[in-house]
Amino acid sequence: MVDPDDLKRQLDEARAALEAIKGKPGDISPLAPASVPAVHPVPGVTLGAAAAEVKYRGRDDVMLIRLEAGSTLAGVFTRSATRSAPVLWCERALAGLTDTGEAIGIVANAGNSNAFTGSAGETSTKAMAGHTAQALGITPERVFVASTGVIGERLPHDKITAVLPGLSTTLRPDAWQKAAGAIMTTDTYPKVASARCKIGNASVTISGMAKGSGMIAPDMATMLAFTATDANIGQAALQKLLEDSTAISFNAVTVDGDTSTSDTLLLGATRKADHDLITDAADPCLYDFKAALDGLLRDLAHQVVRDGEGASKFIEIRVTGAETDAAAKRIALSIANSPLVKTAFAGEDPNWGRIVMAVGKSGEKADRDALTIRFGDILVAEKGWVAASYREEDGAAYMKAQNLTVTTDVGTGDGKATVWTCDLTYAYVRINADYRS
Amino acid sequence: MVDPDDLKRQLDEARAALEAIKGKPGDISPLAPASVPAVHPVPGVTLGAAAAEVKYRGRDDVMLIRLEAGSTLAGVFTRSATRSAPVLWCERALAGLTDTGEAIGIVANAGNSNAFTGSAGETSTKAMAGHTAQALGITPERVFVASTGVIGERLPHDKITAVLPGLSTTLRPDAWQKAAGAIMTTDTYPKVASARCKIGNASVTISGMAKGSGMIAPDMATMLAFTATDANIGQAALQKLLEDSTAISFNAVTVDGDTSTSDTLLLGATRKADHDLITDAADPCLYDFKAALDGLLRDLAHQVVRDGEGASKFIEIRVTGAETDAAAKRIALSIANSPLVKTAFAGEDPNWGRIVMAVGKSGEKADRDALTIRFGDILVAEKGWVAASYREEDGAAYMKAQNLTVTTDVGTGDGKATVWTCDLTYAYVRINADYRS
Repeated sequence: MVDPDDLKRQLDEARAALEAIKGKPGDISPLAPASVPAVHPVPGVTLGAAAAEVKYRGRDDVMLIRLEAGSTLAGVFTRSATRSAPVLWCERALAGLTDTGEAIGIVANAGNSNAFTGSAGETSTKAMAGHTAQALGITPERVFVASTGVIGERLPHDKITAVLPGLSTTLRPDAWQKAAGAIMTTDTYPKVASARCKIGNASVTISGMAKGSGMIAPDMATMLAFTATDANIGQAALQKLLEDSTAISFNAVTVDGDTSTSDTLLLGATRKADHDLITDAADPCLYDFKAALDGLLRDLAHQVVRDGEGASKFIEIRVTGAETDAAAKRIALSIANSPLVKTAFAGEDPNWGRIVMAVGKSGEKADRDALTIRFGDILVAEKGWVAASYREEDGAAYMKAQNLTVTTDVGTGDGKATVWTCDLTYAYVRINADYRS
Repeated sequence: MVDPDDLKRQLDEARAALEAIKGKPGDISPLAPASVPAVHPVPGVTLGAAAAEVKYRGRDDVMLIRLEAGSTLAGVFTRSATRSAPVLWCERALAGLTDTGEAIGIVANAGNSNAFTGSAGETSTKAMAGHTAQALGITPERVFVASTGVIGERLPHDKITAVLPGLSTTLRPDAWQKAAGAIMTTDTYPKVASARCKIGNASVTISGMAKGSGMIAPDMATMLAFTATDANIGQAALQKLLEDSTAISFNAVTVDGDTSTSDTLLLGATRKADHDLITDAADPCLYDFKAALDGLLRDLAHQVVRDGEGASKFIEIRVTGAETDAAAKRIALSIANSPLVKTAFAGEDPNWGRIVMAVGKSGEKADRDALTIRFGDILVAEKGWVAASYREEDGAAYMKAQNLTVTTDVGTGDGKATVWTCDLTYAYVRINADYRS
């Protein structure tokens, strides 16, 4: 005789097991910050968002930023050989940027990345730049364009250009969170950050937003970041500062090792702050500013990893003792991108053998018999073997935490680097294997 | 009122869905050959297997091959910086190999890879070589040792050396399949292949076995292959032949992009065949032999991919139009190793945008606006955009097949390469995230 209550209980269990494996689309990442942080307005910056319904319904999907006349701007972009029409546009616009006494515009849309769209891609980018320029009363070459979402489909740019005149009249200094929401694709939460620092006696603000959920998922989740400061910094110095800071933030995170066709990171400087113009990135006055910029970009980059597709663990990988810093970074990325390392983290398995493997395959010099591995403060391996003091149950207990640190010294030099990544879960497969079906 | 039959039906559905996602440990890969092929004995080669219970119970886990006096031997090994004690032993043994009028031995065990085991690793390797040498009546430096399985754990080599004397008395010419079974770890089927060809008027045999299931899973699934021929080929020529053939077989497959600490591929030549000694790998007499060797190694390498952890699709990636053959191979591997490409295949999603992305991130030159992509014979993309003739339903129908071919021409030169891979499924995550728990 079958007991219906017992069947019901077994059914509930099976369904819970299914949900535990697959997750629920629409869930906010378990690694998300507890709340969306407050954002300080940046003097000289206004922004806003609107719904153009390019792909999504019932939400904003176009964002516009205006930087007042006199601003400088820096940018870094994907190095992909198949980068999108908007990226190519921005590279040209940045190369030609001079102070014409006009404002600068940044326009971005979500839902369609306008990547790999042949000659139509350039047409759409030009249309977005042209209409934004008209709405802001500036020349088109002063408009920076970014698109994120599905690739290979013609961008219905008419929908975007139709909302730009109205959107341009609603720009406000305090709409960072609203704008951050408009550029989300597979992101499960909006990503903003804000910092204050001193340049000389002047108080300076840096604020920014980012989007991204795979390091790349060219259909839906390319990485975009728009940041601005009121610091009075010249174009070339600003570019140098942004490149240096990117190397230890956005270029030190990985979700799946894949590289976007659309990655775009911009930093505007409105030069409203009350200090003398700085034209040298090495100016000692910038000590505090650099630290704040590094912290802000790192914060945004970490938020991207914390929203990594299917992520359940946030992992810091520290490598020391490499031949050079660059070698250390390659070893760290070899660990961070290894599917076997990432699945071990997903399984809360203190599988240090896979760290050894990933060090070995990096192509960099490592001294197997001097290799040290630590999980958090726990010494796991040393001198080419498991440490005498290591107990597997300690490693297993450590792996239960949501935020993990793995440190490895490869014993060949003084080079060091830190990168951040997430684990590889069933949910990653669900998101990327099932999402178009 | 709850209907028990309805509940039962729902429960069966939920359980079937769970099994479809997770698979069943112990299932044979859906991509396995229909049957284990017949293997031709190789004159001068005897082999066998025995159960030492290093880790597994109730199955063979030690394999021994004897190549008669006068044989030559070639080998290629992992380039990992953290390679195992047996690999280091084999590299030294190969470098010092001369014709001493003695036989050659190959001994391998499954269940423990003796990798990252400090100084104990060398002790265990020496013990295996020493006892094998004693059993075969040869010097230890003529014994090649391989171990596969969990890493970082001391190899209980006494268990292995205890069975060697008995095993050495049971060697037979026809035990290839038995021996192939003894080196399996996470493999779901034994991998053997065999070919016959002509050198001059002489009939020559090549036979071999392999194991591997992840390209690497240092705990359980490193790649080993042992092959032998009766061809009369000198040491240096044999080495060159093996290296050339490996480049287009074992070095052209990837399951997860990770690299083993133990990969070992050996090719012995007993020189029993009735033709003159060949000392130049470029000798025109070898035309047929080369083709047979290429085919045999490719067959074994494909069998490894077809047993890839969690694999449900076997995928051939062809790249043409690159600057060089090496550039083409890097582009092909960039596609084959991309988690986003591999999960799209798992989802039977004709997601050509991810191919574009993977070409772009390879670091090699590609002409975005000349790029062509084909799924099988279906033209998907050309001239920087989706092809006018392409219909998504055709791509989706093609993706349902178990064996897939993706061809991309990157439009910059004459370089070409082919690699083989499998998809990235829930089962890959299950095998690698859950297996130690």
